[in-house]
Amino acid sequence: MLSQKHNSFNPRNFVFGFQGQTPLFPRIFGHEAAGVVESVGEGVSDLEVGDHVLPVFTGECGDCRHCRSDVSNMCDLLRINPVRGVMLADGQSRFSINGEPVNHFLGTSTFSEYTVVHSGCVAKINPLAPLDKVCILSCGVSTGLGATLNVAKPERGSSVAVFGLGAVGLAAAEGARIAGASRIIGVDRSSKRFEEAKKFGVTDFVNTSEHDRPIQEVIAEMTNGGVDRSVECTGNIDNMISAFECVHDGWGVAVLVGVPSKDAVFMTKPINVLNERTLKGTFFGNYKPRTDLPSVVDMYMNKQLELEKFITHRIPFSEINKAFEYMVKGEGLRCIISMED
Amino acid sequence: MLSQKHNSFNPRNFVFGFQGQTPLFPRIFGHEAAGVVESVGEGVSDLEVGDHVLPVFTGECGDCRHCRSDVSNMCDLLRINPVRGVMLADGQSRFSINGEPVNHFLGTSTFSEYTVVHSGCVAKINPLAPLDKVCILSCGVSTGLGATLNVAKPERGSSVAVFGLGAVGLAAAEGARIAGASRIIGVDRSSKRFEEAKKFGVTDFVNTSEHDRPIQEVIAEMTNGGVDRSVECTGNIDNMISAFECVHDGWGVAVLVGVPSKDAVFMTKPINVLNERTLKGTFFGNYKPRTDLPSVVDMYMNKQLELEKFITHRIPFSEINKAFEYMVKGEGLRCIISMED
Ligand SMILES: NC(=O)c1ccc[n+]([C@@H]2O[C@H](COP(=O)([O-])OP(=O)(O)OC[C@H]3O[C@@H](n4cnc5c(N)ncnc54)[C@H](O)[C@@H]3O)[C@@H](O)[C@H]2O)c1
Ligand SMILES: NC(=O)c1ccc[n+]([C@@H]2O[C@H](COP(=O)([O-])OP(=O)(O)OC[C@H]3O[C@@H](n4cnc5c(N)ncnc54)[C@H](O)[C@@H]3O)[C@@H](O)[C@H]2O)c1
Ligand SMILES: [Zn+2]
Ligand SMILES: [Zn+2]
Ligand SMILES: [Zn+2]
Ligand SMILES: [Zn+2]
Repeated sequence: MLSQKHNSFNPRNFVFGFQGQTPLFPRIFGHEAAGVVESVGEGVSDLEVGDHVLPVFTGECGDCRHCRSDVSNMCDLLRINPVRGVMLADGQSRFSINGEPVNHFLGTSTFSEYTVVHSGCVAKINPLAPLDKVCILSCGVSTGLGATLNVAKPERGSSVAVFGLGAVGLAAAEGARIAGASRIIGVDRSSKRFEEAKKFGVTDFVNTSEHDRPIQEVIAEMTNGGVDRSVECTGNIDNMISAFECVHDGWGVAVLVGVPSKDAVFMTKPINVLNERTLKGTFFGNYKPRTDLPSVVDMYMNKQLELEKFITHRIPFSEINKAFEYMVKGEGLRCIISMED
Repeated sequence: MLSQKHNSFNPRNFVFGFQGQTPLFPRIFGHEAAGVVESVGEGVSDLEVGDHVLPVFTGECGDCRHCRSDVSNMCDLLRINPVRGVMLADGQSRFSINGEPVNHFLGTSTFSEYTVVHSGCVAKINPLAPLDKVCILSCGVSTGLGATLNVAKPERGSSVAVFGLGAVGLAAAEGARIAGASRIIGVDRSSKRFEEAKKFGVTDFVNTSEHDRPIQEVIAEMTNGGVDRSVECTGNIDNMISAFECVHDGWGVAVLVGVPSKDAVFMTKPINVLNERTLKGTFFGNYKPRTDLPSVVDMYMNKQLELEKFITHRIPFSEINKAFEYMVKGEGLRCIISMED
């Protein structure tokens, strides 16, 4: 059992869980959080009471083909499952109200003072790390950061286009800054994102609503043929296609992160592929939660990675509906919800 | 000037040059060959009279961003240009008949006893290599081999699907055999290709015309979720999509080689990408002609790579029309044309 200290969230993450699925109610939401272990179940040997942890919406059994692969983090056993509302081991929920079960959400259900999580979905982190900051590493920020550092892998001095300047896209830009990219082109339809994005090392801006030709053409013109890397963090299908076609032939790599609507179809002329472009996709930035998240927390502790700039609001749990308002209005990036006061 | 000793060819390569383009006539065709340097032009310092060389339809200037890149071989200056019929330096042809110029083809025009080629489109090779065999390394075989060895990069013990069992696809299979793949699945619509393919290490066969559901489903079923790598060598758009969707999520890599028809569109659901599949394309197997071809010739000399099994016919130049007949009927793989008797 985990005591939840801090939560943070963003609307799009719900989209991730729900698109095209039958919602399960009643249910305890929340999946981006940090907490402290209160008790451990039978057979759990790698976690102890008092450990500081990040619960993660996807897990790592350590034993399947994905967990044993050098490149995949899509664990066969604990991969994200938005339709399951119960614990894996016994098919039962650990929450109830007036004797009626309440469903779990993404194996985490962090909008709660206490929750029960599979030990494979919990990353043990440095106990000195401030939980009210590193909680944002449990989903979106790690996703964007890993998309750049683990998948796009820009070289020093290269150019990177980031589509979508929400928290995930800005974390992708932060990854590009850390990797030493010399030009980071932010693409969004909302110009109010651009001011904020400067703090994340974004050097150039393209407002999609100001152009009536394909954005890949605009970017190719700005960069003498295309960027070295692109990372798509809007979930919009036209942006996915632009993100692919805006990378340079010969060596360009495009990485898809944003989650599309159910009926979207990715389309491109095969010659765009044949001309030696690479298209990749990533889930949680290719981080294996238990193996890799501790080192992401350490990047923050070593001041390599800045988290403060992602945190634009803080509220107590009692005012959670305010957080929903910020999110609906698209205000700020991450709102930290404290469970304690 | 190059004296052409041996030529080999295949119909599809013409498609490569011509699709959707206005043909230039009169013209000397041919681009897969081997020969000996007869004379060198002013300023050429890296070739000497007597050098044994492979002329290549694409070149390597050594100086552009592509040539300086570790991964690209799409030289800005000497990249394949099917519509140019003249030499780059002076925009003139070196061939004429009765005083009228005759066009060059793909910078090589190898159906001729002598030809003139840009020095950046000529790979100097081991003089001990038999020209009547290594001539097939100047296009299709290197393309397929490099698609596997340089781009798909299967690990030892992995599974590889090859779509299209022509010379390019069989060279891709040969690459998989050399890389130590334990399972090589050959996909073709013509079962007469399967007997031949066994010599190339192909272990399993899928005849596309025997299935009325998507081939990616057939392959996923055969392989517990998908192959580790796939290489598409038919140029058919449905095969390109199947080749992408038949690789395993988490780590699968698909490589497109086949040249599609002008109006084809590659389409897939973005979730197939997000689930950590990689799509790549290659041109000439990512080999840089001058830098890399000599070592491919050496692979043959060291008996790592077998070339004999690609050579199914031999004829003198005077009977070249027979070679066209074999090709139209889809008989055999490569037909060597000797210029000498
Ligand atoms: N692959 C994964 O593992 C993973 C994990 C977390 C989130 N995600 C996805 O990443 C995406 C981004 O998440 P976020 O939290 O940053 O979302 P967000 O809503 O905060 O930010 C999205 C940004 O994209 C911009 N945008 C949206 N549609 C656009 C369009 N058509 N053209 C131009 N700009 C557009 C918005 O203005 C906004 O700035 C979402 O699709 C989310 O589901 C994926
Ligand atoms: N990318 C490059 O640099 C490069 C270089 C050389 C050749 N190529 C291309 O590679 C491809 C293969 O060349 P090749 O010389 O091996 O050709 P080929 O005609 O000898 O072989 C093609 C094979 O694919 C099979 N095939 C064709 N359409 C099919 C379909 N719809 N379903 C199933 N099987 C099908 C045929 O039966 C045949 O066995 C061509 O498209 C050629 O243009 C590309
Ligand atoms: Zn999330
Ligand atoms: Zn696992
Ligand atoms: Zn060819
Ligand atoms: Zn060059």
